[in-house]
Amino acid sequence: MSALNFTHDPARRSWIESANAGTTDFPIQNLPFGAFVRDGQIRTGVAIGDRIVDLRALHDLALLDGDAALACATACDHTLNALMALDARRVSALRAALSDLLQHGSPAQARLAASLDAVLPLAADVELTLPCAIGDYTDFLTSLHHTERHGRYKGLADPLPAAFKSLPIAYHGRASSLRVSGGDVRRPHGQFRDADGNVRFGPAPMLDFELELAAVIGRGNALTQAISIDTARDHVFGYCLLNDWSAKSIQWFEQVLGPFLGKSFHSSLSPWLVTEEALAPFRKAAPSRAAGDPAILPHLHGARDQQSGGIDLELFAHLSTAAMRGDRMPAVQITHTHLDNLYWTFAQMVAHHTSNGCNLRTGDLLGSGTISGADDAARACLTELSEAGKKPLALPNGETRIALEDGDEIVLTARASAPGAVSIGFGECRGRIAPALPYPHAAGGQ
Amino acid sequence: MSALNFTHDPARRSWIESANAGTTDFPIQNLPFGAFVRDGQIRTGVAIGDRIVDLRALHDLALLDGDAALACATACDHTLNALMALDARRVSALRAALSDLLQHGSPAQARLAASLDAVLPLAADVELTLPCAIGDYTDFLTSLHHTERHGRYKGLADPLPAAFKSLPIAYHGRASSLRVSGGDVRRPHGQFRDADGNVRFGPAPMLDFELELAAVIGRGNALTQAISIDTARDHVFGYCLLNDWSAKSIQWFEQVLGPFLGKSFHSSLSPWLVTEEALAPFRKAAPSRAAGDPAILPHLHGARDQQSGGIDLELFAHLSTAAMRGDRMPAVQITHTHLDNLYWTFAQMVAHHTSNGCNLRTGDLLGSGTISGADDAARACLTELSEAGKKPLALPNGETRIALEDGDEIVLTARASAPGAVSIGFGECRGRIAPALPYPHAAGGQ
Repeated sequence: MSALNFTHDPARRSWIESANAGTTDFPIQNLPFGAFVRDGQIRTGVAIGDRIVDLRALHDLALLDGDAALACATACDHTLNALMALDARRVSALRAALSDLLQHGSPAQARLAASLDAVLPLAADVELTLPCAIGDYTDFLTSLHHTERHGRYKGLADPLPAAFKSLPIAYHGRASSLRVSGGDVRRPHGQFRDADGNVRFGPAPMLDFELELAAVIGRGNALTQAISIDTARDHVFGYCLLNDWSAKSIQWFEQVLGPFLGKSFHSSLSPWLVTEEALAPFRKAAPSRAAGDPAILPHLHGARDQQSGGIDLELFAHLSTAAMRGDRMPAVQITHTHLDNLYWTFAQMVAHHTSNGCNLRTGDLLGSGTISGADDAARACLTELSEAGKKPLALPNGETRIALEDGDEIVLTARASAPGAVSIGFGECRGRIAPALPYPHAAGGQ
Repeated sequence: MSALNFTHDPARRSWIESANAGTTDFPIQNLPFGAFVRDGQIRTGVAIGDRIVDLRALHDLALLDGDAALACATACDHTLNALMALDARRVSALRAALSDLLQHGSPAQARLAASLDAVLPLAADVELTLPCAIGDYTDFLTSLHHTERHGRYKGLADPLPAAFKSLPIAYHGRASSLRVSGGDVRRPHGQFRDADGNVRFGPAPMLDFELELAAVIGRGNALTQAISIDTARDHVFGYCLLNDWSAKSIQWFEQVLGPFLGKSFHSSLSPWLVTEEALAPFRKAAPSRAAGDPAILPHLHGARDQQSGGIDLELFAHLSTAAMRGDRMPAVQITHTHLDNLYWTFAQMVAHHTSNGCNLRTGDLLGSGTISGADDAARACLTELSEAGKKPLALPNGETRIALEDGDEIVLTARASAPGAVSIGFGECRGRIAPALPYPHAAGGQ
């Protein structure tokens, strides 16, 4: 299933010209799944260039048959969950059929082009929404560089937790406040210590972004039935970008049993699920470990994962401030990192997560943790970019940042590339900090 | 809404005789909501004595009108979520109508008795299931005694975390592995340090129970819209018991960002949601704080909550081992505690949880944390009952426990009482430890 097939053929081009531009995230080799609002209804779709295949409209044209038709009918729901729970070969058949329908010279081109805006609306004309219903959200901590830097900022004698190299550390996140890319991220209220060490409640002063990649589960597992490392990857339907917005001042004060209100006010996801199949050309060996690192325990060690558990994926964060936008300055790239900076693979995260029998359900989200690398350019949050406030990040217009201010906008992007393959992207994960609302109590309750 | 009304009248008795026994958890004054499986379908119901009102069957009899009929129709779903999201006055109307239908001398008695097993099946004849779909599960840590004892076991200089008296500490739990009372709790595999300090993976040796009360959210709030302390209680639909099974050996090793696999293998809930309204006669002042404790910050301090944020609720844990059951010995009571042992009220938990704008959704679950008290009898987990293993718990048959062994069964119960009120209970939250399954990896993957 992760072997290459004709859908990966770099020679394949689409009759939708925007899909052939070298800069598009969504060439015909990608075909990621998502959901959008049209005429007040949530529809599911597949991105191609600057357009979206409306799967219900396509279904109504009856151009598909066999597994592809079944998968398309299953996807005609308000979310992708039913499709994601299907056997992978059926999703693969739908992807293959879409590739054929959309390729240059397809016999279906005339039929599709005749009702272009009905079947293939412009992405700019619709509102994207969360691709699926997410039951549980788990956030991992798998970048050694991110973990070690934070340990050093705290002044720990051993900045890396003892368990870090034995298992992928994780905590449960808040699912209800996951939102699709775009719109405001409201600055939260919370308890924190002020400069005098007093505990106070008010708008949180230290907001940060965290650049992550997230896996979304396709087929789940039953409670008590662990998923083996060898089949773990097959349980991932696809991947998207995740901005794990963090209110550091809240987190520092509250954190006894892990992050809670410091994270749960909002987390942002890019709208498209790039499938495991689309990423096949970019698979590479799992990042190698340093000499002297402990051996991977057998339940997290699999030949397939070691051979191809990595992905050749670069990830970027751009920042623009209100002042920059006022001066029509472009957003500035502040992070350029690579998925190689993770110490654990997603298959290892899945195997570990279920090793105690915990059940993953279709739509569950697994965040990688902040993907920081060793290089300064690869620091993937402002806390690291400013060395915990000691060296404020300098922006081209003379502004500096140790934390996000109201009006600051972060855009995350990513790009998978490999020799001989058409590179693909993820779309963007965008969010802008909006000023805190007045707190209800001050107004006498709501 | 939390004022007393005729449904609380202690003189009221039911024509269902089992509801009039002083020992029943479900007298006519309680009327908790739940869900059960009947003929392969999930139905919703209300407990009365040893029977359950099947709300769909009742709806079909068309005995109700107005708000009560609307609420009953809304409850004819597979879960209670739609009912729980209704305005509280409608749920209250349904509860009042049920009280009238079920009371001694009701004009409807003949009609209901004529199709008794269809409309009011015996609880013993059906299988109870989770009362509602639970989106997010949050677990708090609000017993000072539990927290302080664990801090002492770890040898901390200050056993109470700095934030404990400023806010109700919490972490996100795993929703997918919440299960209704009954059946097996499978011993999980996990990573832990063996006696020689080596990290190994295998069946977790140190299993514990944790006795908690949980609130289930009725009406939620929109993202960014905090719930004020004054209205927080109105967002709770009802309460149930929660056994937060814990694999301590896994927890000790993995815990960097809070509990994860040490908890996520299984959590058990009692099947009935005892409504906020049914608990009104048992409301009491919020537990008072010690002199010298910091003042409650304004957003967590409300006059209504201070006056009646407590509940006169005793909670119990019973243990039986395989050997005891083999010898036909009854389960032994190992914990007898009181909700007064919580430092924070559920209204404070709700207000804190949403203070950063985090949205609660209908069906979300908020666990209190282990409800341990100062007295030895009020220790609500085996870790405390055995003083972290130093003084094994002695059982009547000569067995001892520092952790749960395969075959051990824990039953949690609770009872609300107050002068002049008919006391009510919660049903039971039961689970039995089953031996670990062989791990998939050993068998070559699944």
